[in-house]
Amino acid sequence: MRTKDEKEKWLKPGERIDDLQCRGYDIIQNKDVFCFGMDAVLLADFATGAPNGSVIDLGTGTGVIPMLMQARGKGRHFTGLEVQAYSADMARRSVQMNGLETEISVVEGDMRQVRELFKPGSFSAVTSNPPYIKGNHGLENENSPKNIARHEILMELLDVIKAAAYLLCEGGTFAMVHKPFRLAEIIRLMSECRIEPKRMCMVQPYADKEPNMVLIEGNKGGRTMLKVEPALVVYNRDGSYTEDLLTRYGDR
Amino acid sequence: MRTKDEKEKWLKPGERIDDLQCRGYDIIQNKDVFCFGMDAVLLADFATGAPNGSVIDLGTGTGVIPMLMQARGKGRHFTGLEVQAYSADMARRSVQMNGLETEISVVEGDMRQVRELFKPGSFSAVTSNPPYIKGNHGLENENSPKNIARHEILMELLDVIKAAAYLLCEGGTFAMVHKPFRLAEIIRLMSECRIEPKRMCMVQPYADKEPNMVLIEGNKGGRTMLKVEPALVVYNRDGSYTEDLLTRYGDR
Repeated sequence: MRTKDEKEKWLKPGERIDDLQCRGYDIIQNKDVFCFGMDAVLLADFATGAPNGSVIDLGTGTGVIPMLMQARGKGRHFTGLEVQAYSADMARRSVQMNGLETEISVVEGDMRQVRELFKPGSFSAVTSNPPYIKGNHGLENENSPKNIARHEILMELLDVIKAAAYLLCEGGTFAMVHKPFRLAEIIRLMSECRIEPKRMCMVQPYADKEPNMVLIEGNKGGRTMLKVEPALVVYNRDGSYTEDLLTRYGDR
Repeated sequence: MRTKDEKEKWLKPGERIDDLQCRGYDIIQNKDVFCFGMDAVLLADFATGAPNGSVIDLGTGTGVIPMLMQARGKGRHFTGLEVQAYSADMARRSVQMNGLETEISVVEGDMRQVRELFKPGSFSAVTSNPPYIKGNHGLENENSPKNIARHEILMELLDVIKAAAYLLCEGGTFAMVHKPFRLAEIIRLMSECRIEPKRMCMVQPYADKEPNMVLIEGNKGGRTMLKVEPALVVYNRDGSYTEDLLTRYGDR
């Protein structure tokens, strides 16, 4: 157990430490940059990963996905790739603060340039919680860290899927969280890149509301056969979390 | 109101009359051939149709989909295309029994030969509840009417989507019910045929069970943007029908 002082030495101005509620891990976040959301937690739960292999997270931000997947034994080694220097540095400090330097490496780099950073087929699993919003129409400050994390400014959907296809070994899995309205595009692009969609789960805020997230996992070179899981409903009618949501959060 | 005798004159041996629970319509079925299921009723409810246009149902079987859609005002004229002579005849007698000859035509023909039967772009909406099962592995009697209705023996998924693309006018809608495990294939083939998926609804038997049907509608030449509807759950935990299911059945 680290003391409060020991932890705070890792912080830079504007940052805070949050409890990941998973194996006692903490995470550094800066609300002016980006804080992870339910999307990342659900993706870490949904993704198969590679218990005996290497996993890379594209656009890792705070590093939350590799940390949660490491906690759940979903890989032997994790790499978090992040294009924004400040976020990469923050993620690296979170990893160090939790003593996970051996298990998780944070690499500063652009997923559009994976060919210069990694060998082809060098990972058994790829994860990504990419920016969801198409284009940068009407953004006042399109290079702000928050906008880069939310909008397709530095990359677009095809870039992340292409990078995954390059990085994955044959049979490896690619898991992503995205917006349901882009599902047709996602399935087409995955197929074009030879990643066959194999599992899908829609996330609905309420039982009678349309989904606002889709979790999807594909298999490099897999044959066509998609397993659609029951929709995950986040809230009960009374606004409390559903059992299903709670079992996907925190320690298990 | 027709009397029992007036109705029974339309029957051939082995047939029975069922109440469609919709505008007082009846339907002729033969359980040795094929009886329509929940899939057809849900598709008729889900499909947008074309209130002021012509609608064609590919592989219409008993004619249940055009009859339900006509009852709901989802088209000015309906055509049911059916390759099996006996089913086409039975559907035609159902239409006559309900006095719908002006509104619904039944055409005996093969959806793989639509080019010889209809002009391109001559329909505003296409519907289909095609056979779901790939191939005919291990079927004892692959040419039985039931097997032809359930297995991809006389046609396969690409055939129905190609036929829809040929028959639809620009902007027209194609609605289909199918098995979720084939969703990736469905989206790819629709896209290849320039029918962009626009609406989708998964049907789950119970809230915590994976879906066993997918309702999907595309738009010929549409731009990419899929609206995923909340999953439709069929049964409550106690085995009774859910409100959502009941509102999609029968008169509204």
